[in-house]
This record gives sequence, C-alpha cells and structure tokens, in this order.
Amino acid sequence: MQKSLSVYDSDGSTFAPLVVIELVSETKEEAIAWLLNRVRDKQQDGGAELLVEQLTPGAQGTEKDNPNVYVVGASWQRLLYGAEDVGLFKEFNDGSMRGFTYANKHNFKEFQGDGDGFLSMAECQYIIKHELDNLRAKDEAHVPGYPKMKLYPGKSVIRRMQSKGILVQVFPLHEKEELKRLSFSWFKKIKLSFQPLDDIRHYFGEGMALYFGFLEYFTLALIPMALIGIPYYLFDWEDYDKFTVFAGFNLVWCTVILELWKRLSASLAYGWGTLSRKKAFEEPRPGFHGVLGVNPVTGRAEPLYSNAKRQLRIYLVSVPFVLLCLYLSLYVMMIYFDMEGWALMIHDEEPTFWTGLLLFIPSIIYAVVIEIMNLIYRYAAEFLTGWENHRLESTFQNHLVLKVLVFNFFNCFASLFYIAFVMQDMVLLRQSLATLLITSQILNQIMEAFLPYWLQRRRNKKAHKRMIKTMEDKELPLSEQVKLEADMSTYLGTFDDYLELFLLFGYVSLFSCVYPLAAVLVVLNNVTEVYSDAFKMCKVFKRPFSEPAANIGVWQLAFEAMSVIAVVTNCALIGMSPQVKSYFPESETQLIMWVVGFEHFLLASKFILTFVIPDVPKHIQIKLSRLEFESLEALKKRHQKEPVYKRLTYRV
Amino acid sequence: MQKSLSVYDSDGSTFAPLVVIELVSETKEEAIAWLLNRVRDKQQDGGAELLVEQLTPGAQGTEKDNPNVYVVGASWQRLLYGAEDVGLFKEFNDGSMRGFTYANKHNFKEFQGDGDGFLSMAECQYIIKHELDNLRAKDEAHVPGYPKMKLYPGKSVIRRMQSKGILVQVFPLHEKEELKRLSFSWFKKIKLSFQPLDDIRHYFGEGMALYFGFLEYFTLALIPMALIGIPYYLFDWEDYDKFTVFAGFNLVWCTVILELWKRLSASLAYGWGTLSRKKAFEEPRPGFHGVLGVNPVTGRAEPLYSNAKRQLRIYLVSVPFVLLCLYLSLYVMMIYFDMEGWALMIHDEEPTFWTGLLLFIPSIIYAVVIEIMNLIYRYAAEFLTGWENHRLESTFQNHLVLKVLVFNFFNCFASLFYIAFVMQDMVLLRQSLATLLITSQILNQIMEAFLPYWLQRRRNKKAHKRMIKTMEDKELPLSEQVKLEADMSTYLGTFDDYLELFLLFGYVSLFSCVYPLAAVLVVLNNVTEVYSDAFKMCKVFKRPFSEPAANIGVWQLAFEAMSVIAVVTNCALIGMSPQVKSYFPESETQLIMWVVGFEHFLLASKFILTFVIPDVPKHIQIKLSRLEFESLEALKKRHQKEPVYKRLTYRV
Repeated sequence: MQKSLSVYDSDGSTFAPLVVIELVSETKEEAIAWLLNRVRDKQQDGGAELLVEQLTPGAQGTEKDNPNVYVVGASWQRLLYGAEDVGLFKEFNDGSMRGFTYANKHNFKEFQGDGDGFLSMAECQYIIKHELDNLRAKDEAHVPGYPKMKLYPGKSVIRRMQSKGILVQVFPLHEKEELKRLSFSWFKKIKLSFQPLDDIRHYFGEGMALYFGFLEYFTLALIPMALIGIPYYLFDWEDYDKFTVFAGFNLVWCTVILELWKRLSASLAYGWGTLSRKKAFEEPRPGFHGVLGVNPVTGRAEPLYSNAKRQLRIYLVSVPFVLLCLYLSLYVMMIYFDMEGWALMIHDEEPTFWTGLLLFIPSIIYAVVIEIMNLIYRYAAEFLTGWENHRLESTFQNHLVLKVLVFNFFNCFASLFYIAFVMQDMVLLRQSLATLLITSQILNQIMEAFLPYWLQRRRNKKAHKRMIKTMEDKELPLSEQVKLEADMSTYLGTFDDYLELFLLFGYVSLFSCVYPLAAVLVVLNNVTEVYSDAFKMCKVFKRPFSEPAANIGVWQLAFEAMSVIAVVTNCALIGMSPQVKSYFPESETQLIMWVVGFEHFLLASKFILTFVIPDVPKHIQIKLSRLEFESLEALKKRHQKEPVYKRLTYRV
Repeated sequence: MQKSLSVYDSDGSTFAPLVVIELVSETKEEAIAWLLNRVRDKQQDGGAELLVEQLTPGAQGTEKDNPNVYVVGASWQRLLYGAEDVGLFKEFNDGSMRGFTYANKHNFKEFQGDGDGFLSMAECQYIIKHELDNLRAKDEAHVPGYPKMKLYPGKSVIRRMQSKGILVQVFPLHEKEELKRLSFSWFKKIKLSFQPLDDIRHYFGEGMALYFGFLEYFTLALIPMALIGIPYYLFDWEDYDKFTVFAGFNLVWCTVILELWKRLSASLAYGWGTLSRKKAFEEPRPGFHGVLGVNPVTGRAEPLYSNAKRQLRIYLVSVPFVLLCLYLSLYVMMIYFDMEGWALMIHDEEPTFWTGLLLFIPSIIYAVVIEIMNLIYRYAAEFLTGWENHRLESTFQNHLVLKVLVFNFFNCFASLFYIAFVMQDMVLLRQSLATLLITSQILNQIMEAFLPYWLQRRRNKKAHKRMIKTMEDKELPLSEQVKLEADMSTYLGTFDDYLELFLLFGYVSLFSCVYPLAAVLVVLNNVTEVYSDAFKMCKVFKRPFSEPAANIGVWQLAFEAMSVIAVVTNCALIGMSPQVKSYFPESETQLIMWVVGFEHFLLASKFILTFVIPDVPKHIQIKLSRLEFESLEALKKRHQKEPVYKRLTYRV
C-alpha cells in the first residue's frame, strides 16, 4: 500500500486513498451529502462503512477544476470483511487455496499482524468497488435534490447515479512506487525473460494477467512453427509436398496448444484463487431497463424484461442486420476485385508510370472503406446489443464480441478466401497475406506504441506547465495525482487486444500451408506487442479495476472455432496443390474424396484430442477435490456431533 | 414400507427388513460375529448402527439352504441421518428442492410425524447400501478367522469380503404390494398413457426411471418421422428428391430431439432431487488393486496405482486390441461378401432349389459368426478394462462402454456402409436394412419377453413344488420370499438396454433417406420394448439398488456422436442419388463440392444449435440459482452477525 499519500477523514484519522469518485461539478449539495453519508454509514444501517473525503485542491488548483472529486478508502478490518464478502481465495497454511474468512484469518499463509499487506492494492480497490456497487437504496424514492432520479428499495445507488450522468467516473488510483517497479521488470529492460505475470496480476488483476499470459504463451507456441517456416522462405521451397507436411504439423499443433493453454490457465487461475471462486450473483448492468418487478432469484425489486422480446429482437433484427452487413462487405469486396481487374487491364494496355500507380489505388480504397465499415459496424453493434437489453454485463459483452468477431473475421479473411478458393491464385494469396500481415503489424505498432508515446509526451508537457514538479516525481501531491489520472484515457478492456491476437492467429493457421513465413511475422509482431501493451497499461491509461477471471472466456471458444476452420481451409488448399493433384491424374473425383476423407479424419481427431486431454492438470484436480472432500466431511462431522445424545436413545 | 413383514432384532424390537446379505455357507463363525457386530455398532464407535438379524429358515427349510443369510434394516431416525449423509434432495415447504438435513426435517414438504413414509423404500435401501459400503476397517489387520484376507484402516469391509468371495451378494428386497401396484399401472393394462415415471423412480430409483423416460421420449420423438415415412412405403415413392427432403428433416429432427431430451431430463432430475445433488467422494471399485499408499484427496490409506501405467496399458494394449478386433471384423465381413458373391454365382449358373437355399447360407453364417465375435469381444473388453485397473467404477464403466460401443457399431453397420458406399447398391441396402431391423426386433422380443416369461413360469412351478402358497400370494413368509429373490437373476444395469436403443437409433438416422420405413419399425419395436423391459424388471430380476442419476450420462454423448455421423452418411447418400446427380450432368466435381459444402453447413448448424439451445430449462435454472443465491446470502449474514461488536469499535 502506498504510505506516502494519506487523507484525513472527518474523525481526524488518516486513511490511504484507493478509489476516486468524480461527480459533475454542478451536483446539488444535498445529493452529495446524502451519498457521502450512505458511503460512510455502518453496514447494519445499510451503508458501505467506507472512509471518504473530498479532495482538497492542491496549490495549483484553478477555478476550472471540478471540486466534486472524492477519494475513498477503508480501514484494514473493513477491507478484510470485504474480502470475505467478495469471496477472495487466498493461500492457506497447508499450501492450498481457500476462500478467505475473517474468523479464520490467522490460518492464511501471508496474514501477519493486523493483516496490513495481506491484500494487494488492486484487491482492496476491487473490494471497494464491490461495496460501492452494492450500496443500495433503502426507502428513498429518489436521489435527494433530483426528484426525477427515481430509486426503489434495493437499487444500486452508484449505478443509478452513473446511468443518469451525475456520477462522472469511479476509478482506482495508481501506485507510483509499485508501478515503477512493475514497469521496470516488465518492459523497461530489454531482456529475454518471461513476463512478471504474478506482479501484473498483483497490480492489474487476473483478467489482465491472463491476457498477457495468453499473449506470451501464444508467442512461445508459435516459435516452433516460425522455426520450421524459416527454411521455406530461405530456400524458396515451392514444393507443395513440404507445404502439406507443414500444414499437417500446423493443424495438430494448433489443437494441442489451445488445449494446453486451458491447462496452463487453470494452473494460473488456481494459484491466483480465481479457479474455484464462486461467482457472486450478478447485478443488472447499468443500461438495463424494464418494468419494475421482483427478480425470481433474489426476490429483490428490479427491472424485468421479457426474454421472449429479447430473443425476437436478436433473431428478427440483430441477426438479419449482421447478415446484411456481411453481404455488404462481400459486395464491397467484389467491387474491389472488379476495380483491380480494371486497373490491371488499363495498365496492361498502356503501361506507364501513372497506370502503375493506378494499380495501387483499388487496394488503398478498399483498405480505407474496410476501416470505415469496421468503425460504423462497431457503433451499430454496440447500439444493437444495447438495444437487445441484456440483463447482465457478461451476456452483453458476449453478444457484442460475437457480432464484432464475425464481421471482423469476414472483413479480414473474405478477400483471402476469394483469392484462394475462387481465383485459386496461390501466388497472389501469398502476396496478399504478406501485405496484410506486414501492414497490420506496422499500423499496430504505430497505434499502440508510438501514438501513445507521443500523447504521453504531450501530456507530460502540459502537466509541466501547470506545476513545477514533473509527473515522474514521487512528491507529487495527491490532488495533482488524482487530477492527472482523471484526465488519462479509460482502458476499455481487453477486447481489442484479444481481437488483434485472434486475427493474427487466423493469418497463421488458415493459410499456413501457402505462406509458412506468417508465423515468423506474427512472432515478431507479438514480441513488440508485449512491450507496447505493457507500456500503454502503465503509462497511457487510467488504472482499470481488477477483474477476477478464471480463463480467457469466450476467446478460448473463438480460437478453437478458428482452428476448426483452419482444418477445412488447409485441407482444401492441399487438395488444390498441383503435387497432390498429380497423384490422381485420371480422376479428380477420387482426389476430392480423399481430401474430404482426410479432412473428416482430422476433424474427428481434433474432437477426440480435445476430449482426451483433461482441461485441468491432475495436481490441480487433486487439490480441488481435496477441498471439496474436506468441506463435505466437515459438514458430515458437524451433523454427526450435534445430535449425539439424541441418537444414543433412539432405539426404543 | 412393507409392514406385513418384520424381524425381531436382538433387543426384542422389530424392524422392517430392507436389504439381504448372503455369506457363503461355510463362512467361519468368528468372521460372521465380527461382521454383525460392526454392522450393529454405534457410529461413534465406527459401526454402521444398523439392525441386522439372521434369517430364520421357514417351515420348508431344507438342509441345502444356506443358513448364512441376514436381513438388514434400520430405525427411522437412523435412516433420516443416513439420508443427510448420502445428500438426498427433497421437496422443501416452498416447493424448491433442497438437501435434506435432520435438524431442518420439519420444513420438508412430505415430512409428517416421526418421518415414517418420508423416504421411499428404494431410498432406504440405497442409504443402507451406502452405510454398509462405508463400514471401514479400524485396526483389524485381517478379517477374523481369515488371516489372508488383509485389511488396513479405512478399507471398506464389505467390499473386501465381496472381492474375496465370502460375501455372495447384497441385494434389496422387493415389496410385493407396491410392486403389484406398479406393475398394474405400468404394463398390465394395455392403454395409451405415459409411463408412471415417478412410480418407477420411487420403486427402482432415478437411473432406471431415466432409462424408461428416455425410451418413451425416443419413441414419441420418432412418431413424426414414422408418420412421414409411411407414405413412402405405401405409395412406393422411389423419388430421391423426396428422400432428400426426408433426410434433411431427419437431420434437424435428430439434433433437436437430443437437445430437448437434455432439457427434459434436467426437469425430471430436478424434480427427483438428483440434478443439484453433489456427488459424494467416490470410493475405489472392488476390483481395484495397487500398492497401499495415501490417497492425496482423502488422506486415507488406499491402494494407489500409477496413472502413467494405466495410460500405457490403455494406449499400448487396449487401443491396439480394439483396432485389431475391428480389422478382424472387417475381414470377416469381406469374407461374407465373397461368400455371397460365390453363392450368387453358383445360383446363377444352375438355379435349383438347393442353390436357392445356398443363397441364405452366407448370411446365416455371418450372423452366427458376428454373434460369437460379439460375445467373445464382450468378455475380452471386460477383462481388458478390468486389467486397466481403473480406480472408480464410473471410469471403468465409461471405458467398457466405449470399447463395446465401438465394436458393436462397427459390427452392425460396417456391412451397411460397405453396401452403401463401396457397392453403391441402394436396393440391396434397403433390403439389408429391413432384414436387420425385422430380425433384430423379433430376436429382441424373444430374448426379452418370451424367454423371461418362460423362465418365470418354470420358476413359479418350482416354487410351487416347495410350498403350497404361490409366489404371488401376500402371505408368503419372509424366509421364503428372501430365498426366492436370492435365486432370481441379477439385473446387470441399463447398459444392454441403452445399447439396443443406440443401435436402433443408428438404423433410423444413418440411412434414413434410403429407407424411411425404418422409423415405423423402430417405433413398433419400442412400444413392445417398454412392456418387455417393464415386465423383466418387475418379474424376472432381483430388485436392483436404486442409482441416483441426473442424466443418461455417456449415452447422451453416444447418441450425439451417432447424429453427427448421420449427417455425413445422409449427405453422401444424397450426393449419390441419380436425381441429385442429374442436376450436375457435366461435372461430378461440382456435385461433390456442393454436397461437401452442404454437409459442412449442416454440421456447423448442428453445433450452433447445440450451443444455442440451453441444456437446462429457464424455470429450473432460476430455481437452481435461487438456491445458490440464498446459500451465499445466508453465509454472508452469518459472517455479518458474528463480529458486529468488534466492528463497532474498529475505527480508531
């Protein structure tokens, strides 16, 4: 915990600020007073029992600064109770991971003294966020001072104020010292070593650590493919027999690495205590609306929305819309190929420098149009998914991911599919693949490393103007730090990062037998990706709230789906190769039958392999079942002890 | 509970006998005395605290009768504690299903007075079996009187005595009155009605009830297919276009019914309290052997066997053996086709009555050889699976099912596949299908209804000789009833019944577009199957111990795999039909590409459909999550109440 910064609360005691709440500057006094009281109230009175103070403006405070910025903290004991509430798992004395309970606290491995340092700052911030989100309206009919801001018993106060726009943001504070240490071990020194996943998890939470773990794993897993791919490039092997061997290796490899990742992520998640952690009951997402009713699960008052209506919206509006967009994208692609053919024709008729330049025009237009379409589609997908009115943030995210994924997949790979299977032009396919990979790589590096770095530089200069001390300085007063961080951009989650990996995985796996060098390029890209992602997390964005995660969720599924599609495309490519065709000189039918048979065999093997490799390593399974066994035994013993006297007499 | 029968125990009080233990007649006195003591001992002394008495031989008792037959029962209170131990779920006052606890007993819906009648007899017997199985050795080094029958602390006494052959059998008793009622409502009156699944579950347990539920569901689900199939037969439609439509319908239908069954079985299992029931820790199966060590999960002494060794045995011996058997089966099939070709040739050369008869010889020989191979293979599979030395009965069963399934699938369908795809003779395929279906149907009816009925008649006559009163009579003394039931054959589980359904499902789905009448035949077969199965359960076999089950387990997977294979075969058959071929007169390649494309589309749709249809109906999901939510809330409240005074003072 950062000890250099502290805030005096109303009782005169100090506390370490963990989370910042920012209200709009014109918020009514009574609403503020009411909110602060609710946050400070004892738990038995329905409060959150947290410590909260207004941020006193620093020396450089100007008129423009928003006065309604509050820092929230809590005593260690409150945080420990909170850790029990959110169901944190911690390492027990015997080395197993167990749900933390306050009563049992001294039996946990790292618990010393009064528990200071037992919880990481990210965990404390997660607990405070959880407690704030769980601050519920009692009998208030509306937020004081805002008659239109309706409340009902059980409604989360923070979520209502957020959805109505009084609450600008809630975000956790960075910890300069720890961040410096993390940055140093993570990306500041260039050396060959694994990423400090435990430190990342300690600072950013499990969701982020799993992303970086996956990124690293994925890169390492591609290295064998890259090594095998290099001689193809060096010796200019145009031999399809060799490509076939490479593709076969590739397919098995993809399946195996995805299965092994499941095991690795289970190991990581067990060590971090998220594997067996029970998900708390999920609250409706802020944007969810409906007629006030009673939730059948919790019995609490809550908006309800008919599932049938939602299904109708999904299947009658969203699905047709997505299909329409896919059709549109296909149409644009066809126009592109027409344009290219036309440009080629002109160039062939009368080859000059200008017609040579003309050859590039269709590609540039197509690339720009695709980018614009992606952007528009992304907004449309977010709007549609919001309009589908999902109750949970997680289902909302899944539906959004699915929509965006399908479209991006289509946009990125449709032209490659067309070249491969309709035009059957392998040379062009290889060229396009190379172009796509290299340009996307350069673009990514610019967008993710140079642009943030430049923004960062600009920001630093601005900050420099406002005060004498620089941002890097430890002695920056709290109010300045909060203001600086409040202005940083908000990290919107790992979605875009995973999407990028997903598309790269597609380039490597779908057409691997035509362009074995793809793996090399992707490995190079990923190495820089690690650095730029680490840099942006530490330097560019507000600290995100840590998100407990036991796996990479829907992305595992997406990668597996990609590897299934890869089997189909690679088999088709192999079947189309002249070398394979030459084995069946007299009958094309037989060739196709063999290829289809081989493909079915590969698909079947893939499913069997997925089934045979256990998702959780044996030693973790044993630990999990020991925990379960012990809790069952404890239950049994409790029951057996209780009625022992009764039992002695029951045989009449 | 049967009240007509009762046994005086050593204290002079009476109890209703539930389970019978039979030891070999020459068992040593000291072993018997020790076992009975352990069964009667109090639980805190490590006993099972059950009531057990030797069966007094009836009036007709002869010298030949085994004297070492014991009946076991328990007091109601003991059974209620046992119900808590085994984790029974019962209906709560609010209509939800909850884990039964003795302390909370009066809040359960059907609990009245002292709880007599709260548990069904099948549940009581299951509890007693569980308690007997859990009777563990304390510090005895061996079974008294048998120095070679080694024991170690924690070893299940009953299992050791069973594996060493002193214990002949443990089986639950029938309840004549209830059985009569069940038989009447189940199969004695011929009428159109659903099966009394709740009564079946009440008497035979959930595993059996789910089998009959599945059988009924499967039959009903086939009726639409049968109805559509009838006109094909009546009007002699040889039109492949129509067959294609039929096959398309068939494929969608198969996927949908299998998905819907999951939902139905979840509903049934929820109502029976097995859906959310936690599996108790599984003990090693009786045949499991290894070096004595400590189980890492329970910490108990237990034989251990290296997983690596087991994997080696599976992959280096079992898998090659199975593949060899499949190859052998293929070889036999080829000989059969050769023989048939040879017989046909002789008949064609010189057609007489005898050569006409000769035509049948190959089929008969093939059928007999297949039956023999099946039998030998079954023994080999059981031996191999035993030799693989699986720790759990459930894994043993899964490996056995897999082995037997693959071989049976191969034996039943290999010749059909050969006819369909190598010979491409659709007329012969239809003939073979019809022959196979009809003969297997007749054979099944004989094996499952007539043979048992005949055995039953013979048994009745035998019983008649021994005593004046018939078996049907209520007033049959306990000792006679026990002896009669001990002689009945033991029901070996639902394996063979499911296997039969699985193969029938294969006939319907794999080649449906060639022979639409198959569904009709299978429906007819299933209707009689219900009756013969019900009859054999009630009249032919010993009562089986009830087995709690939440679904049909590995069979769901097997049926789903079959429906995936069906997509492939049906698409291939459609592609081979002359009508479809005529659409692509110039290019066979294009035809195949279309068919393969269509097949991939169907497979993808199948997986998406499986994914989109939730496995558990919404209203059950709500009930399950309410239970979970309540237990989380209760936990939270308990923690919040405890430290309330501490908390008031912690803000220093």
